Amino acid sequence: MDIDRIRAAAARLDGHARRTPLLSSPFLDEIAGRRVLVKPECLQHTGSFKYRGARSALSAMDDAVRARGVLAYSSGNHAQGVARAAQEFGVPAVIVMPADAPALKIANTRSLGAEVVLYDRATEDRNALGARLAEERGLSLVKPFDDPEVIAGQGTTGLEIAEDASALGIESAEVLVCCGGGGLTSGIALALEADAPGMRVRPVEPQGFDDTARSLASGEITPHGQPERGLCDAILTPAPGQLTFPILKRLAGPGLAVSDDEAMRAMALAFQRLKIVAEPGGAVALAAALFHGDALEADTVIVTVSGGNVDAATFARALDTL
Amino acid sequence: MDIDRIRAAAARLDGHARRTPLLSSPFLDEIAGRRVLVKPECLQHTGSFKYRGARSALSAMDDAVRARGVLAYSSGNHAQGVARAAQEFGVPAVIVMPADAPALKIANTRSLGAEVVLYDRATEDRNALGARLAEERGLSLVKPFDDPEVIAGQGTTGLEIAEDASALGIESAEVLVCCGGGGLTSGIALALEADAPGMRVRPVEPQGFDDTARSLASGEITPHGQPERGLCDAILTPAPGQLTFPILKRLAGPGLAVSDDEAMRAMALAFQRLKIVAEPGGAVALAAALFHGDALEADTVIVTVSGGNVDAATFARALDTL
Repeated sequence: MDIDRIRAAAARLDGHARRTPLLSSPFLDEIAGRRVLVKPECLQHTGSFKYRGARSALSAMDDAVRARGVLAYSSGNHAQGVARAAQEFGVPAVIVMPADAPALKIANTRSLGAEVVLYDRATEDRNALGARLAEERGLSLVKPFDDPEVIAGQGTTGLEIAEDASALGIESAEVLVCCGGGGLTSGIALALEADAPGMRVRPVEPQGFDDTARSLASGEITPHGQPERGLCDAILTPAPGQLTFPILKRLAGPGLAVSDDEAMRAMALAFQRLKIVAEPGGAVALAAALFHGDALEADTVIVTVSGGNVDAATFARALDTL
Repeated sequence: MDIDRIRAAAARLDGHARRTPLLSSPFLDEIAGRRVLVKPECLQHTGSFKYRGARSALSAMDDAVRARGVLAYSSGNHAQGVARAAQEFGVPAVIVMPADAPALKIANTRSLGAEVVLYDRATEDRNALGARLAEERGLSLVKPFDDPEVIAGQGTTGLEIAEDASALGIESAEVLVCCGGGGLTSGIALALEADAPGMRVRPVEPQGFDDTARSLASGEITPHGQPERGLCDAILTPAPGQLTFPILKRLAGPGLAVSDDEAMRAMALAFQRLKIVAEPGGAVALAAALFHGDALEADTVIVTVSGGNVDAATFARALDTL
């Protein structure tokens, strides 16, 4: 994995991925006690950054391979990203999803033209199911994070952060990234190493699911050991990946963890001050910036809002915290 | 009023106003039965397009005049735009607001450094109050729409629409604009006349407050004649302006009017599909695109979401329509 792969992904994504802006609000700066810039990947196609990695992976495949179709495991955002990218290329997509995934995410994935295969988390082996489907139909697996082309696609977010921050005269910052398996975090870290070496990535996770923070602290991959259930459903991945962790170990600062309540309050403030919709897992980095300032060092913090695929009831509960 | 004034405003706004993207969703296209592109000015500084006009007006003033301070009448979005622009220039801002304006808008205006003077809509004469303040303190009035530099600032929205649509290969479209006094609508109309002559502006208003539609139909300024109270508080202006109406009469297509319920449903769909926060008055153009397709002609419709300053309770009610 190196910067050239990210730049190549950026070239392939040009004209396809949406160029998201950097947002800000003096009201958020005041709460945080420092300058806060927000990269709203909730505004990306399919409502999360996952489209970048999916489009990158599909566009890097040989035409004949891609034409047979793609397979993904996902509880939601990765599924939608892969489904949309496959639809754009006109190739089949099969998405293996837990039967208890949010209904909106399942419906959206189907509406984007994918075949959704549901499984029971308690009784079925997702990997065996997927392997059988892949073999039967000649599908290529698109991993959610531990794949060089996926990491490269997510890393294009970091190229944009570096460019837009530089235009604002910002060369030094902590960059807080909502972190599940570390695809977005490691991709951004590589991009900033090349284009904004004065910036340092710091992963942010939900409390109790801070496997990346623990892994960075111990120096080796350390799963969180919890069932993957919780408010921040997009980023409950058990552990950082074989590809992503070495990148994070080399480049990322210490991890941060926020409570579900803090994530909900950050969603409400993103509504009120930025006019964007963040899902719980997409709001943890903003929550860290707003409510964990003691753990930060830089005068400027840049945070990703990594997704906005949240149901109305959960969002309304977040607004109740205002 | 001509295009050169808009281009000059764009130069003065460069590096200050936020460059908002064009958003889209296949789910909205499906509801509308045509391609829908959304210009989310809710993401603009202060949460509405009004910042553009305010910054344009203040930046066009002589330094000595601006230094004495500015005055504005506004129930909300214009107030915040003027307050922020004045704060950026370090000059005093006095905002005359009705005492029953949304609490969040009053609080935001104060937090942006402005002095807020409240008046009672029923018993006090806003214009007399403002004139007295202006004379006593040497303040310059920044009108909400009927001012060439304000129209020019709002028109920069149209320059961006033309440029971004062209990059997508779109030269022909109906451009639906949320319309109060017509500053944004006339500014966009002038910009498109120059840069995207295949596009036509159409104003969208709340039912019962469709003074611009009636004025366009009758050929002369026709007030709606209602008290300025309703869900879509940002765009209940009694009539188009002396400067804005002749521009609209020359360039705009027939007006459209939507119900409050349609505006609320459009807010909910903007939440669900675009991950943006629209206020009721900022959602009427999207509502027209989604629910009044029979009144539209073009294969592509571009809609402004002109603001996102809505309280949580109203927003939660909108989500209940999903």
